[in-house]
Amino acid sequence: MVTARRTEDDWVRRWLARWPAPRNLTVGAGDDCAVLPAPGAGYDLVLKTDAIVQDVHFTRADPPRRIGAKAVNRVLSDFAAMGAEPLTLTVSVGLPRHQAPARIEQCYAGMARAAAPYRVSLAGGETTRAAELWFSVSGLGRVPRGRAVRRATATPGDRLLVTGTLGGAPRNGKHLTFTPRLPEGRWLADHRFATAMLDLSDGLGKDLPRLAAASQLGFTLDAAALPLTRGCDAAAAVNDGEDYELLFTVRPGRLPALLRTWPFATKLTPIGRLTRPGTVNTDGLIFRGYDHFD
Amino acid sequence: MVTARRTEDDWVRRWLARWPAPRNLTVGAGDDCAVLPAPGAGYDLVLKTDAIVQDVHFTRADPPRRIGAKAVNRVLSDFAAMGAEPLTLTVSVGLPRHQAPARIEQCYAGMARAAAPYRVSLAGGETTRAAELWFSVSGLGRVPRGRAVRRATATPGDRLLVTGTLGGAPRNGKHLTFTPRLPEGRWLADHRFATAMLDLSDGLGKDLPRLAAASQLGFTLDAAALPLTRGCDAAAAVNDGEDYELLFTVRPGRLPALLRTWPFATKLTPIGRLTRPGTVNTDGLIFRGYDHFD
Repeated sequence: MVTARRTEDDWVRRWLARWPAPRNLTVGAGDDCAVLPAPGAGYDLVLKTDAIVQDVHFTRADPPRRIGAKAVNRVLSDFAAMGAEPLTLTVSVGLPRHQAPARIEQCYAGMARAAAPYRVSLAGGETTRAAELWFSVSGLGRVPRGRAVRRATATPGDRLLVTGTLGGAPRNGKHLTFTPRLPEGRWLADHRFATAMLDLSDGLGKDLPRLAAASQLGFTLDAAALPLTRGCDAAAAVNDGEDYELLFTVRPGRLPALLRTWPFATKLTPIGRLTRPGTVNTDGLIFRGYDHFD
Repeated sequence: MVTARRTEDDWVRRWLARWPAPRNLTVGAGDDCAVLPAPGAGYDLVLKTDAIVQDVHFTRADPPRRIGAKAVNRVLSDFAAMGAEPLTLTVSVGLPRHQAPARIEQCYAGMARAAAPYRVSLAGGETTRAAELWFSVSGLGRVPRGRAVRRATATPGDRLLVTGTLGGAPRNGKHLTFTPRLPEGRWLADHRFATAMLDLSDGLGKDLPRLAAASQLGFTLDAAALPLTRGCDAAAAVNDGEDYELLFTVRPGRLPALLRTWPFATKLTPIGRLTRPGTVNTDGLIFRGYDHFD
């Protein structure tokens, strides 16, 4: 059990040892702040914070490595949605009393394993007492200046596309085991295909209206085109949530080039288009949780 | 009450409106990530995350503006301890059910007010359900390359100094109302006075051994020299904690110049020196919570 502060320092050191050596940090965990070289004026910095809480985003029964992976991958998924490259993370942890240190160590191992393929370091963290287990993860990354893909930059007529398949994530475990679409997001930004982009955390039924609203546009969905996870129908694809796939827009004239040059095994599917403001067509599907349709 | 996601979006917008316009952000709250220009290769980036939790760091009865201020000022205090300039913050909030939105809005107002004097923006945030109210604040800042003041860079003989007065913070409210020593920390770094520095969050009795250990040194404290908060004795000054003053070291030959040129109204007091490893002298004071003395 974590009892005194000094003991806590020792545990935190042990958890951090699971993380790859922080090559890109001048000062890592253990000082008041972490320090790393600025990437140069040709870049913009990209920032994100996110949190997962026991009994909201995961359960007591979930494998701790997967809990840690989810905490990190949710943040990496947001970097994917900007077309950005994540560099380093900080993690705050809320620890209930009598939490087994081995379980937390496994959570950290899951975080490290999620970050490793992208060479993302851990810059530091903080632990605090809490009523329930939670992780708040913040990420710092970079993107060539002016090239971050926003939500608000689509125009009427832009085609809507999604990566992967939709639906079932809360039931089939994908909400813990998904892969953030980082290479796909960066490729879409680098090749200037994506005119607007976000990651589907709440489900297409909430996130598509959010994307359209950010660009002050309407949308038309092609329900028959939705890429369904095995065992899911279109209603599940729209409303289950936690897909962590990319939803993005592309100018109609560039769609053929996109489909022809897409270099990934990840499925890519056109599912509709953005329209003038005030015109919304869900093709008969109910978008749950989206107030306009409640 | 915060009920549906769309309603939550609206509340978050309202809370963020309390914050000054984010002049230094290209993309602010509301997109997947925030974006800001990189500060140029002459700088290092500085990162910190910290969290405060109800019934650990504040109580239900504390004024919500002060709770928000504490969440932000604890992070700003860490930037002070590196001699760094904070630029922007992200905030994750754990919201219990039936939390009055007005109370959270007041917390955000307190955060904004704490950040305003330093022109620190809010880059984004996340809200989640939680069993108790908590805030996790992450900061991004900058420091001229190579000039961040670490903990591990003191040498034997370096004099120990503290800003302000010590003791009483948990009882007299200072733990909620302290001022982070940002100008003082940056001045000490700019003029290369500080050879090592940290902020006193856990109290001198824990943080002084921590500073010495980071530099692999011992220390000698002059108990009679401790700058005491009114109504506190030396034991309180050492063990109460939450002073959020700076503890730093300076080469003995530079101490007269430091004391002569110190431009702040903030009190500055020499309290001892660092020594060769293995020699520790607390001048008869008990350092509570420091294992070596338990």
